[in-house]
Amino acid sequence: MSATAHDRRLVAVLGHGLVPAETPILRADDLGALRGDGIFETMHIRDGQPWLIEAHLDRMERSAGLLEINLPARGELLDLAKTILSEWNPATEGALRLVCTRGPEGGGVPTVYATVAPIAASVVDARRNGIRVATISLGFGADARSGAPWLLGGAKTLSYAVNMASQRWALAHGVDDVLWMSADGFALEGPTSTLVWLTGDRLWTVPVDRTGILSGTTAAWLLAHAGDLGWTSGYRMVTPAELITADGVWLTSSVRGPAEIRAIDGTERPPSAFTSAIVNLLGFPV
Amino acid sequence: MSATAHDRRLVAVLGHGLVPAETPILRADDLGALRGDGIFETMHIRDGQPWLIEAHLDRMERSAGLLEINLPARGELLDLAKTILSEWNPATEGALRLVCTRGPEGGGVPTVYATVAPIAASVVDARRNGIRVATISLGFGADARSGAPWLLGGAKTLSYAVNMASQRWALAHGVDDVLWMSADGFALEGPTSTLVWLTGDRLWTVPVDRTGILSGTTAAWLLAHAGDLGWTSGYRMVTPAELITADGVWLTSSVRGPAEIRAIDGTERPPSAFTSAIVNLLGFPV
Repeated sequence: MSATAHDRRLVAVLGHGLVPAETPILRADDLGALRGDGIFETMHIRDGQPWLIEAHLDRMERSAGLLEINLPARGELLDLAKTILSEWNPATEGALRLVCTRGPEGGGVPTVYATVAPIAASVVDARRNGIRVATISLGFGADARSGAPWLLGGAKTLSYAVNMASQRWALAHGVDDVLWMSADGFALEGPTSTLVWLTGDRLWTVPVDRTGILSGTTAAWLLAHAGDLGWTSGYRMVTPAELITADGVWLTSSVRGPAEIRAIDGTERPPSAFTSAIVNLLGFPV
Repeated sequence: MSATAHDRRLVAVLGHGLVPAETPILRADDLGALRGDGIFETMHIRDGQPWLIEAHLDRMERSAGLLEINLPARGELLDLAKTILSEWNPATEGALRLVCTRGPEGGGVPTVYATVAPIAASVVDARRNGIRVATISLGFGADARSGAPWLLGGAKTLSYAVNMASQRWALAHGVDDVLWMSADGFALEGPTSTLVWLTGDRLWTVPVDRTGILSGTTAAWLLAHAGDLGWTSGYRMVTPAELITADGVWLTSSVRGPAEIRAIDGTERPPSAFTSAIVNLLGFPV
C-alpha cells in the first residue's frame, strides 16, 4: 500500500501509468467513443485486490476474439491493474474497470486503460435489501443470437446504450432494475447482471450459448461452489411465473454481488432464507 | 476560407474550438466511451458546407430526447460546425461528424465535439460502381421495437458495435455491406444506411415508426424530391425477393450518398438506368 492511498476515482493508462482522473485520454476519433467499439470488464475490489480477475480476463479475451480487437497480453493487463491498485486504499470497497477500445479510426493501436472508484451507496443497499424489477422484452426470440455472430452475443462491449436506457426506464417506472425477456417469454438476464435462482436444493442460471447472454463471472463462480451450500446446480430456461415461486431469485454482478429480487412486475416475493448465505459465500461485505 | 485550408482530419471541441486532431479530449470515465452512451450525426461536406445540416440537427435533437441527453442549443452546434469548416479546404469532399456524449460518469456536462475528414476512396467507389450485399437478421420481428423505448429505435447512438460487426462480417464474406433483416423476413436498413427502391414510377423506403429503424436524412430528402424525377414516393415493407425485381435499389447514407445494390445474397441485379439521375439530384460528385 502506497503512503498516499486513495478512495476517490483513479485512472491509469497502459503505457503511461497513473494520470489525474480528469485527464482527457481518448482522441476524438477513438472508435471506443465514436462507435462503442471496444470491450470492458468490471471487478470487485476487496482488501485492495480484484476478485476473480483471471476469470474476468478470460471473458475479456473471448470478447476481444468476437470483436476482432487486439487485446494486449494478459501480463500487461494484470500489471495495469496492479499499478492502479497500488494507490487504492485497501480499506475501501471499490470497482475496477478495464477498458480496451479498437483505437483511432483508420488504424492504430487499441486504447487500454483502467479506472477504480468507490462503490455507490445504492449498490450496497441493493445487496442488503434486495431489488424490485420489471420485465421488458429485448424483442428477439431466446435462440435469435445463436449462429448470428454479428449480433455479438456473449461479448461484453462498450455499446451499452440499450442497457443504460433499460435501467433509466426502470427508475422512471418505479423499480430498481429490469429483467430482460426474450420475445418468446423467457427471462434472460439483467442489463448489467446475471439471473440466478434456487428451486429446492438446486441453483440455476440461464444457458449462455443458446441465448447469447453474457456469461456471468460471479454467477459461474457461485454455481461452481453451490456444493458448499449443499446444493447442486444447472442451466435451464425459465419464465417469470416460475421465478415468482422459486426459493430465491438473485441478479448477480461483479460489483453489486447478489441482489435478491423481491418483486417482479409488482408481484412481491417473500425474502429468501438463503440470501445471506450466498452473500457470505461470495465474500461481499454486508 | 482560411489561409491555411486543410484536407486532413480536423477536430473542434465545444467551448475550446479547434484542437490538434491527435489531442485526447475524452476523460476515462466519459459515458460516451464507457457505455457508448451518446449520440451523433454525420454530414456530407460539399463546397465547404454541410449538406442538410438542419435536418441532421432535427434528428440529433430527437435522438437526444430518446436518450434524455442535454444536447446544447442548435446555435452552439451550428457555430461548432462553422468553426471547424472555416479551416477545411472547400475543394475537398469531406465528412463532418457531430458527437454529444452524456459526459463523465456520476454527473457533469455532455462532451460535444466535431470532426471533419476526407472521404475514403472506397466510399466514392461504392457510389460510382454499386455494392454487393448479403442479408443478415437482426433477430427480432419488424414490429419488435415499436412501443419498446428502451430499445432506442430511431435513435442514432454511439453504440454501434453491432453495426460495425455486421460490416466486418460482410467484408469477411466477400460482400461490401449487409442488409439487415427482421426475423419475419422483411428488409429493414443497412448498418449505416437507408434502403430505397424504385418500382415503376414510385420510389419507396421502409416505414420508420413501425420498425424502429433510423429515419434516413438523405432518403427523406430524396423521397421528398422524387417528383423532380417524375416519380411519386411512399413507405412500405419489402422482402429481398421483391428487391431483386425492382427497377433500382439503393442504400443511401449521408456521406456515401446513394450506393446502388448490384447483388443480394449472390443474385445479381442489372445496373439501374436511374442511378446517375439520383446521384445528380442528390448533388454528389461522380
